[in-house]
Amino acid sequence: MNYKIDNLQYCNWSRKVFKINRQAGLDAIHVTIVYHEDFDELQEVVNKWSILFEENKDLIFLGRNFKDIEKAKKENKTAIFFGFQNCSPVEDDIGLIEKVHELGCLFMQLTYNNQSLLATGCYEKNDSGVTNFGREAIKEMNRVGIVIDMSHSAEKSTIDAIEISEKPIAITHANPSFWHDVKRNKSNELLKILSQSGGMIGLSLYPHHLKDGTNCTLNSFCEMVAKTAELIEVKNIGIGSDLCLYQPDKVVEWMRNGTWTKSINFGEGSKKVPGFPRQPDWFLDARGFSNLEVGLKKIGFNNDEVNGILGNNWFTFYKGIN
Amino acid sequence: MNYKIDNLQYCNWSRKVFKINRQAGLDAIHVTIVYHEDFDELQEVVNKWSILFEENKDLIFLGRNFKDIEKAKKENKTAIFFGFQNCSPVEDDIGLIEKVHELGCLFMQLTYNNQSLLATGCYEKNDSGVTNFGREAIKEMNRVGIVIDMSHSAEKSTIDAIEISEKPIAITHANPSFWHDVKRNKSNELLKILSQSGGMIGLSLYPHHLKDGTNCTLNSFCEMVAKTAELIEVKNIGIGSDLCLYQPDKVVEWMRNGTWTKSINFGEGSKKVPGFPRQPDWFLDARGFSNLEVGLKKIGFNNDEVNGILGNNWFTFYKGIN
Repeated sequence: MNYKIDNLQYCNWSRKVFKINRQAGLDAIHVTIVYHEDFDELQEVVNKWSILFEENKDLIFLGRNFKDIEKAKKENKTAIFFGFQNCSPVEDDIGLIEKVHELGCLFMQLTYNNQSLLATGCYEKNDSGVTNFGREAIKEMNRVGIVIDMSHSAEKSTIDAIEISEKPIAITHANPSFWHDVKRNKSNELLKILSQSGGMIGLSLYPHHLKDGTNCTLNSFCEMVAKTAELIEVKNIGIGSDLCLYQPDKVVEWMRNGTWTKSINFGEGSKKVPGFPRQPDWFLDARGFSNLEVGLKKIGFNNDEVNGILGNNWFTFYKGIN
Repeated sequence: MNYKIDNLQYCNWSRKVFKINRQAGLDAIHVTIVYHEDFDELQEVVNKWSILFEENKDLIFLGRNFKDIEKAKKENKTAIFFGFQNCSPVEDDIGLIEKVHELGCLFMQLTYNNQSLLATGCYEKNDSGVTNFGREAIKEMNRVGIVIDMSHSAEKSTIDAIEISEKPIAITHANPSFWHDVKRNKSNELLKILSQSGGMIGLSLYPHHLKDGTNCTLNSFCEMVAKTAELIEVKNIGIGSDLCLYQPDKVVEWMRNGTWTKSINFGEGSKKVPGFPRQPDWFLDARGFSNLEVGLKKIGFNNDEVNGILGNNWFTFYKGIN
């Protein structure tokens, strides 16, 4: 059985998006439901998702573990797994880790771009690694079954998290910096440590993470996947598209600025190009998975490897979470 | 005019404590009103203080600036200045800095012992300095008139804060590590940088910060003050006793553990001695200021210097805040 999984999307959710994901054949997606929200705000978001699940129950349902991916396949639906791009819903309270898991959280980043109470983000000048609270939080996340996601974290913090965590961790959406050297992408050394520990990298289709941005070619992307597969095991490679379909630009402003600054921070963008970038033509939305399939085969991956990258590798990872 | 100021107390507040402070002749104290409380919890604490002010208006009132120290002197009362030992009431929202100032906050530590969103605490393994949010927060604290207090912060973070802040900062309660080398005490280098920038150190009478702890002698303490005055200018030296009169031991547990760990952290204490330590006989409460006066004169300070250390230096510092 082959599964198609996109392990990071942050779309402006609607029936239209869920239909596109079904057309793309996605059995599961990991969706970001919060960035900087606190616990109370998270509960409001979860309530809104309950309505989405009810209104679109022919297309989606809340996933809790790998069995829900099998169920989705059988029922021609997409299992939705909740994740956070910052640890802010946990506030300063280790007791909230179990609570957010009860609300459906399966992935949590220890940091967004800035320093958090748990670790350092990739946009800070210095990286002090996982903090005292971070060590305790990782233990608790391991215990309750929340995956540690270090997509937006700095390097030492990520290596610390891999060492401290008793379970493999994930970088759900990023690319190797050997291909495109920006703060959000990851070094060869880090990718090797990640893979050796059984962790996953979800390769990103977000233009700021791509060589040549919006103009990145399918072939260039697939060459990068091939080189990554020379560096680390193919079984640790998946997709985390970071698709932000139909989001207004004020959302990317919120993602970058939260409530921590009075001046405007442009993050991966710039004053000239402050908004969401345009997707490459061959990956306008998740239906681009079919282009990836063609491209990965053309670059030399065999069928098993392609199926692994497009979903089976994430499926195996999900099996190990609980 | 001479003023007596104790620039850090965290007592179990009652009429009895306010009377002791009046007997000690204190014109002003900076009191810790929160450790790990968030903004809502802070508001509850402020409400409780309103009752204390009402019930003890013959002894105390809320101080806002240096003029309230003059007023207190005139009226034989003690002006109470609010401070936080962690930045948790500000949560992740720079807009709350102005709000906490409106509620009376005049001093805020950027960190307690652990990493915060703003800087690194002295109990972390690594110190990455002031964070992105921290830089913005310091600017905002400068703007609204809240003093940056780095008593529980790590060294690089403290040096960063001194550099970034446009106003002098304070270490309200700590001692030099040349005298007693523990995580909470400060290096010669740091004290020099602090003094050169016009910042204040409030010397602490809390046994964990004292050489020989509870058995520290008045003479040993005063010798330390004299050596400190060789290292930095006397005008930057004051007292921040860190008195925790009548607090039950569960309070020190809360201070150390907040809600960040499921195991017990003993901080400056130990498994054997987990509670509050006993004060030295010559500083059981603020009435010990009279012993300090005798001891400091005996060690060789002149009258002006002694009056400076016991309050006038803090008074001058307060004059520069707003």
